[in-house]
Amino acid sequence: MRSRFLVPAATAALLGLLMIPTEIEADEGMWLFNNPPRAQLKAYGFDPTDKWLEHVRLSSVRFNSGGSGSFVSADGLVMTNHHVAAGDLDKVSTPEKNYLRDGFYAKNRNEEIRCKGLELNVLIGIKDVTAEVEKAVPAGTAPAEAFKLRTAKIAELEKGAADPAKNIRADVVTLYAGGQYHLYTFKKYTDIRIVFAPEKQAAFFGGDPDNFEYPRFDLDVAFFRVYENEQPIKCEHYLKWSPAGSKADELVFVSGHPGRTNRANTLAELGYLRDTGYPYLLQRLNRLEVLLSSWGARSEQNMQRAEEELFSIQNSRKARVGGLAGLMDPKLMGRKVKDEERLKAFIAKGNASELKVAAGAYDTIAKAEQVRAALIKDITVLENGGGFNSHSFSIARTLLRASEELAKPNADRLREFAEARLPSLKFQLMSDEPIYEDFETLKLADGLQFLAITLGPDSDLVKKVLAGKSPRERAYELISGTKVRDPKVRAQLWADIEAAAKEGKPYDLAKLNDPMIEVARLVDPASRAVRKRFENEVDEPKRQAYAALAKAKFALDGDKVYPDATFTLRLAFGTVKGYAEDGKPVPPFTTFEGLYKRSTEQGNKGPFELPKRWAERKDKLDLKTPFNFVCTADIIGGNSGSPVVNKDAEVVGLIFDGNIQSLVLDFIYTDEQARAVSVDSRAIVEALRKVYDATELADELAGKK
Amino acid sequence: MRSRFLVPAATAALLGLLMIPTEIEADEGMWLFNNPPRAQLKAYGFDPTDKWLEHVRLSSVRFNSGGSGSFVSADGLVMTNHHVAAGDLDKVSTPEKNYLRDGFYAKNRNEEIRCKGLELNVLIGIKDVTAEVEKAVPAGTAPAEAFKLRTAKIAELEKGAADPAKNIRADVVTLYAGGQYHLYTFKKYTDIRIVFAPEKQAAFFGGDPDNFEYPRFDLDVAFFRVYENEQPIKCEHYLKWSPAGSKADELVFVSGHPGRTNRANTLAELGYLRDTGYPYLLQRLNRLEVLLSSWGARSEQNMQRAEEELFSIQNSRKARVGGLAGLMDPKLMGRKVKDEERLKAFIAKGNASELKVAAGAYDTIAKAEQVRAALIKDITVLENGGGFNSHSFSIARTLLRASEELAKPNADRLREFAEARLPSLKFQLMSDEPIYEDFETLKLADGLQFLAITLGPDSDLVKKVLAGKSPRERAYELISGTKVRDPKVRAQLWADIEAAAKEGKPYDLAKLNDPMIEVARLVDPASRAVRKRFENEVDEPKRQAYAALAKAKFALDGDKVYPDATFTLRLAFGTVKGYAEDGKPVPPFTTFEGLYKRSTEQGNKGPFELPKRWAERKDKLDLKTPFNFVCTADIIGGNSGSPVVNKDAEVVGLIFDGNIQSLVLDFIYTDEQARAVSVDSRAIVEALRKVYDATELADELAGKK
Repeated sequence: MRSRFLVPAATAALLGLLMIPTEIEADEGMWLFNNPPRAQLKAYGFDPTDKWLEHVRLSSVRFNSGGSGSFVSADGLVMTNHHVAAGDLDKVSTPEKNYLRDGFYAKNRNEEIRCKGLELNVLIGIKDVTAEVEKAVPAGTAPAEAFKLRTAKIAELEKGAADPAKNIRADVVTLYAGGQYHLYTFKKYTDIRIVFAPEKQAAFFGGDPDNFEYPRFDLDVAFFRVYENEQPIKCEHYLKWSPAGSKADELVFVSGHPGRTNRANTLAELGYLRDTGYPYLLQRLNRLEVLLSSWGARSEQNMQRAEEELFSIQNSRKARVGGLAGLMDPKLMGRKVKDEERLKAFIAKGNASELKVAAGAYDTIAKAEQVRAALIKDITVLENGGGFNSHSFSIARTLLRASEELAKPNADRLREFAEARLPSLKFQLMSDEPIYEDFETLKLADGLQFLAITLGPDSDLVKKVLAGKSPRERAYELISGTKVRDPKVRAQLWADIEAAAKEGKPYDLAKLNDPMIEVARLVDPASRAVRKRFENEVDEPKRQAYAALAKAKFALDGDKVYPDATFTLRLAFGTVKGYAEDGKPVPPFTTFEGLYKRSTEQGNKGPFELPKRWAERKDKLDLKTPFNFVCTADIIGGNSGSPVVNKDAEVVGLIFDGNIQSLVLDFIYTDEQARAVSVDSRAIVEALRKVYDATELADELAGKK
Repeated sequence: MRSRFLVPAATAALLGLLMIPTEIEADEGMWLFNNPPRAQLKAYGFDPTDKWLEHVRLSSVRFNSGGSGSFVSADGLVMTNHHVAAGDLDKVSTPEKNYLRDGFYAKNRNEEIRCKGLELNVLIGIKDVTAEVEKAVPAGTAPAEAFKLRTAKIAELEKGAADPAKNIRADVVTLYAGGQYHLYTFKKYTDIRIVFAPEKQAAFFGGDPDNFEYPRFDLDVAFFRVYENEQPIKCEHYLKWSPAGSKADELVFVSGHPGRTNRANTLAELGYLRDTGYPYLLQRLNRLEVLLSSWGARSEQNMQRAEEELFSIQNSRKARVGGLAGLMDPKLMGRKVKDEERLKAFIAKGNASELKVAAGAYDTIAKAEQVRAALIKDITVLENGGGFNSHSFSIARTLLRASEELAKPNADRLREFAEARLPSLKFQLMSDEPIYEDFETLKLADGLQFLAITLGPDSDLVKKVLAGKSPRERAYELISGTKVRDPKVRAQLWADIEAAAKEGKPYDLAKLNDPMIEVARLVDPASRAVRKRFENEVDEPKRQAYAALAKAKFALDGDKVYPDATFTLRLAFGTVKGYAEDGKPVPPFTTFEGLYKRSTEQGNKGPFELPKRWAERKDKLDLKTPFNFVCTADIIGGNSGSPVVNKDAEVVGLIFDGNIQSLVLDFIYTDEQARAVSVDSRAIVEALRKVYDATELADELAGKK
């Protein structure tokens, strides 16, 4: 199936374009199951049969909470990561039983705990509907009308394929940024029960210091069971457990749902990220990390209040550090330059009208990135709230804007206030998670100082916000003076706002005289103005320009290449392989022995403390068991929980992380040092049997039953 | 004594200037002992006699290693802070006996340990020599000639007053930025022995988290004894120990050596610091703190390698955070505006030629600060080495520059290569402290990335430095490839450089082909250029402008005010007083009980771990004993170790820190929240007796002997 934008091969040959090879690295790609990388796999002497592909696909599971998994027994057992399961473990925990922290094991079916609101999908059908979707939109249709016609066609296709009675869900997915449309049908499961999870300390041994690093020693695994009609489902397709695991240089496959890649980014956008976006964001993350960690160090209570936010900051910081290192690697960026030159040459020589649109796209993006760079500071402190860093401000602003937006017709509102999004916005606003006044004051004082530094302490807006006080004094005054943290106040105000909106009127919040709401009001005109500029001069022109480039790219390469990741099921592959760092080899496998060694070296403290069970059961374990390993498969966030299988489609591992060098995979694939990190299948079984006494589960994985 | 620049009172009155009061806060000032704040003290109903002043002065001691102290017994016992003594404790430690970490107590004189290279000074004479110094420089003399004449006169005065045979040292000190010259004579002591120090964990309980904070619980004290001719000296003047300590609202005095204040900074310079200098430095400190702490968290060995540098970064970061908060306080800055308006008005109405010079000074400084802001990035990454952050680069550049500079006549060299400074430069260069390759690579990789972000990855210089590699790869290549970390290589190269210099030739380092030296060579032209611009367009114009302003200020106020701190002996005063923070009162005193409580709350971990002795002796202690306290006295770095005395000149405390709000005292005094933090005299005695069994020492302090 080729798009109508595809330049026929003969024309391409004429243009000399086929002479320039598609720049794909050996193990690159997040491939569609209906378009697997057969050419690349030939180099490995392996040609997957359709049956093999179907089997692996039907054994793969998407967690709608975000993440991947796979069936690993005939009785509906699903394997994923502990960190994919974390939200579900938390939801079923009680003050007495903290399953997220302490782990869980159901020895028999009766003990399995039903999850709250978890949905799993299995991709049971793929149909290319590109031609139908395109036929629905006659050439030359204006964009708004085209959008309407396309949306209607897609809805029609989805409706025709879905079968709610049989729990069949249908989604038309957009691939190649609109180069292809595929109709995916899913079997949907909503009765999911928890079978096993280790304690968090075993799943996330090494904590933030070892996050995105290798060697690693984590048992980041969890098992669920899928039920229908109160019975475990019977799986025709599930992945068998490899008794032997993998070995170095072995070809392996990863089947999962990479969330999003940006490999089509132009050099102008990469340049923006490298020179402005990432450095600026890193400055901010560094500032917040130092603020929170130094405040946290002052007392255990402080640390309890700050640690979740601190970890998320550290996680983002590491991700950006890794990404920036890649953007500064001339070898990687050199490949990007070649890619762009190749596509530019193709666009310049073509004359389909679509290619003419694409010709201006590079300049459009470059210009948009300049505006983005010019707006980054204002956007950060105002619209993104960096200058008012606190829950209290977010709540106050949401209330303020709600009072204005809800009184407007749906189409005129800021997008987060559209009817369709209101339930989730309200849910967030009414959250009763505790908000601590001291932590709020700390963050707001820092935010106000950041605001003053960014806009200049003598700017009118800053002077009005600070009202003649120092950032610290003003933060204390605002946080201690506002009423918006009280959930009852929030609920009452929301009700009042909705009531007024029904009469088409904004609710008058000014009469409350709440200092935080008044600050939100003070900055809102400037904040809305910069947001509008960003949407009009950055987001929208880029969306159009990237769509044009995607069409050109598809015209050039068609489906000879894989589409950017979109949280749809993909097949990646690679070899189990170590790498070199600072001239020293990093071997592909770690062992249980390494876990004990690392813990001892680190004084068995903090994130390196051995879980109690692991300390007690050390003697029972075969310490030579491979624990974690790395491979060259092309993965990204969303692949968490993906099974790693061998040529026989047997489980040899479980993806749970990428090393820091893999963080550039957002933009470009490289196998020099970038690695996917997995739990070894042998470690899972050994730990289940010897540490967790989960004999039944281990037997089920082994097929003994 | 008035300077010839002083406007006679009658003229000043005519100009309406005496109507504008000198803006001095109640407890402000670091006063000269020969010009005490009698007017302010009258408000306390206390008028120190000349005898009182002389007694306190002669009981005060300057540590030439940086810091203050006092005689506290007739037998030459000197009290200071543990952190002032730290370097000396370290120097006499051995692999078996770590006195800095574990503490030390000499039960008798024989056990006292002689320090290496420690010199103490006591200020025994003060003579105003302003007239003599000024007479030596006829009006209208050109600056260079004036400098020569003044220097010669000062040398003559010092020579006349010094008496090496009697260990009398004489220094002419410059006060009021040249408004006055005083001839100080010191009794110099060089045989100093260690009597007592607690373990560092008691002296620095709370570590970095509690540094610059209050409440505090630190026994930051150490005792030395001064010897002459192998005998303890007999002190006529020493401070007696107060049996009762101090109480809230009591008037207290601090006698010590504040190092440096910048209270004459103009609004333009304060604006630069607030808007550019501090924020930029903080960004850099945050970046380094995150880099080092995250690397340190990956292993105990990493942390050992990084912790000293990390602590110094955290310490600077806290100091800047506190300073910036002050600069952003409109109340404080409002006072600065008034001060500047007052002096400007005086300058505008005056017509002495000196005042005419001062009239242009504000603009000169403002312009210099603009240049400073424009150069800050280049200066930071190039000349200050931020883009090449590593010992290896520093060594390589020092060698490179030495080869060039030593071949030049003394007067033409960069100042750190002047003959007089060479011994200390060489001492530093030859230091054999270990330099770790992994830590060097980490820092250099970060430095090179910082360089690329700062100058732009596509700048010629960055491209040449990176040589087609990523910052990380290049850092590894440079650190693993250079030979300059080898002390033998350094020593040989220095010898070769000196030998070549004797023949007036630069030693040819290029033949070594050392990659780090070649990088240093690559950036040196740009680095020297930006340094030169900074010296010519920032440092020198500012030096002259501030000198002119200082003269004008002296003409306006004479010695009715105190001069900026210059590490000369000063008398500060204030009241023992808590303060309010976020609406909550912070009481002035802490107790031993609070120490145990804080340790327990913090899980008795890390910087909050109770020292073993303190855990064991808890029952013996009177837990109600006041431990630390705060007062409003005007202090700054250099005051560490200063005695706090009552009206009877009895020791009630020992300065060891300021709270974070006091960090603005560099620029302006405030008693709203800024506080000096002291160890209570009662805690010292109680701990000596009950925790350290240092009965002899406690008895000596009590005067029982």
